[in-house]
Amino acid sequence: MMKSPINFQLKHQSKDSLARTGTITTQHGVVKTPMFMPVGTLATVKSLSPEEISEIGAGVILSNTYHLALRPGTDVIQLAGGIHRFMQYRGPILTDSGGFQVFSLAKNRVITEEGVTFRNHLNGDLMTLTPEIATTKQKEIGADIIMAFDECIPYPADYKYAKASTERTLRWAVRCLATPRDSHQAMFGIVQGGEFPDLRELSAKATTALPFDGFAIGGTSIGEPKAVFSNMLKAAVPHLPIDKPRYVMGIGSLDYILEAIGQGIDMFDCVLPTRLARHGALMTTHGRLNIKDSEFEKDFSPIDSSCDCRTCKQHTRAYLRHLYRSDELLGKRLMSIHNLRFLIKVVEGARVAIEEDRFQSYANKVLQSYGDDRGF
Amino acid sequence: MMKSPINFQLKHQSKDSLARTGTITTQHGVVKTPMFMPVGTLATVKSLSPEEISEIGAGVILSNTYHLALRPGTDVIQLAGGIHRFMQYRGPILTDSGGFQVFSLAKNRVITEEGVTFRNHLNGDLMTLTPEIATTKQKEIGADIIMAFDECIPYPADYKYAKASTERTLRWAVRCLATPRDSHQAMFGIVQGGEFPDLRELSAKATTALPFDGFAIGGTSIGEPKAVFSNMLKAAVPHLPIDKPRYVMGIGSLDYILEAIGQGIDMFDCVLPTRLARHGALMTTHGRLNIKDSEFEKDFSPIDSSCDCRTCKQHTRAYLRHLYRSDELLGKRLMSIHNLRFLIKVVEGARVAIEEDRFQSYANKVLQSYGDDRGF
Repeated sequence: MMKSPINFQLKHQSKDSLARTGTITTQHGVVKTPMFMPVGTLATVKSLSPEEISEIGAGVILSNTYHLALRPGTDVIQLAGGIHRFMQYRGPILTDSGGFQVFSLAKNRVITEEGVTFRNHLNGDLMTLTPEIATTKQKEIGADIIMAFDECIPYPADYKYAKASTERTLRWAVRCLATPRDSHQAMFGIVQGGEFPDLRELSAKATTALPFDGFAIGGTSIGEPKAVFSNMLKAAVPHLPIDKPRYVMGIGSLDYILEAIGQGIDMFDCVLPTRLARHGALMTTHGRLNIKDSEFEKDFSPIDSSCDCRTCKQHTRAYLRHLYRSDELLGKRLMSIHNLRFLIKVVEGARVAIEEDRFQSYANKVLQSYGDDRGF
Repeated sequence: MMKSPINFQLKHQSKDSLARTGTITTQHGVVKTPMFMPVGTLATVKSLSPEEISEIGAGVILSNTYHLALRPGTDVIQLAGGIHRFMQYRGPILTDSGGFQVFSLAKNRVITEEGVTFRNHLNGDLMTLTPEIATTKQKEIGADIIMAFDECIPYPADYKYAKASTERTLRWAVRCLATPRDSHQAMFGIVQGGEFPDLRELSAKATTALPFDGFAIGGTSIGEPKAVFSNMLKAAVPHLPIDKPRYVMGIGSLDYILEAIGQGIDMFDCVLPTRLARHGALMTTHGRLNIKDSEFEKDFSPIDSSCDCRTCKQHTRAYLRHLYRSDELLGKRLMSIHNLRFLIKVVEGARVAIEEDRFQSYANKVLQSYGDDRGF
């Protein structure tokens, strides 16, 4: 078997939970896990420069194959020498397969054994994604970690549909692995199975039998209650190998992230912190605040006095409120920096807590101080 | 007479033109002239951080009293400890008086000897600006250089109107000077007179007889042909003292800037470079380019290979085109940095040329390479 282009090193297994710390070595550097990955959908973490992405402590960032295939086209990125050179980010980059966007953004979707045809959300043109096409597009983009093409089963879905889809995703996984990719590119498989524990187990066992470099749990954070989310992980995680990274896709709220870490997940991504920031919703140690509220008009304190981001070190709530109300780009930028740094710092704190075998009390303390995160 | 809160030092008078170099010392640092001043209308140079403003070589930046009075209100800025602390820019800041916006943005304008009443462009509320109010609002904002409240005479205007307005602006100038301001705040008078040389001369002589710390030439760059603009300066400049800074308001195209420098002007400002950038129009040594053009789709060269800005050192035309077409905030930001740096660098080159007594040939060479700037 080919040597994995990435190397996951388990560092510490917490004694109070399934939480664990580790490192992932890639061609573009070593990153620590657990890790929150900022999303740079269109080869840009919205409003941030490459230096700012590094400065907030980001490790891997995620970019979206579906969006990049539409704009600027994977041929442009390939010609640029790959996404790292195209966007000038020196750290590791992960691309999704486009599968999630096909199910969330595209219209007139038709799924067959071959793949999916659909009309894209930009100009309505007919497009096709198959395991081979999705893998080839990711090869062209040149990310360090690429994802198998899967179907994201809607929630709720009936058992029969979920079973057929899960089995098809497994057949697609084999085809993804058989499609050429670059030698530096790791590929992760994705466990599906909907809300059904037996299907999650089946998917986890069958996916991990394939020579993937890591494993994602997909079909989460699509509207299911937290207990269902938690059970989706519980059904899958015990069947994942301990020596490969584990990734839960699309979670960005504090409670879901801490739940996932507690179940032994290493990686997660979400647009939530940047999207919230652009709408003036700021995450703080003591819960969220909405910068447009009039109470901040003459509030010359930082967003969060315990935050070490550039925004908090330099700017006041009053200034940020002014920028937000004036629809100034700098406001969106400064608030994006804060929300990303806030989440990354919480996860950094989790790493320390895990290594001191007190993750569960750390998570409880963070959530208690933060309050109800589902408000987002 | 009170000592001026700023100190202008003439450094070199070019032998080939009226162009000159100098320095202005303010409480927030020493800046070199001639100098292009980026505009930060709402206490933000759109999309740029304070560090980026400094990095592009900006000296003084300009902010707009009319806009700040509406949002966030000068009381908020005063409470913040002044505009420098509010926006965290450490260099010198100049505020205009609001006069220009009253004439360009406001509705239902009524001018009397007392001042101007109008409905603001945001919510239509009735507002009044007088010499006293405009000065007090600028005192509250706390800029290093504040401007007298004047009427910007439209172009074209008849002689009778221009004369009456020019005389009223002179009476307002006296009232501005009589209104308290902070000891660190310099105040500039504004020469009006429309397109009429005798009125420009009258205004220049009468304004410079008042104890202002510098002098602006107003009512320019409002649609007049370049020859008229040039004549407006020619009629006024000979009557301005050599030991005080000279400022032409609202010019940002290369030909107007170089014309003004050649006539001995030290300072100018304009929203043009940042506005153009947000619309994808980029200034380069060899003329402007429009980043959305398809020719740049796979162009992996910088905007301008002779530019030393962060954008040109790091990013390609292809990436910037992608960001522009995707309406990504980072694109507006990177292109704003470039256009501002481009203009500032041209002016830096002018300073060197002046000190080597070859300003005229420098200006000709720059303009010849750039081509027709009026296309903007």
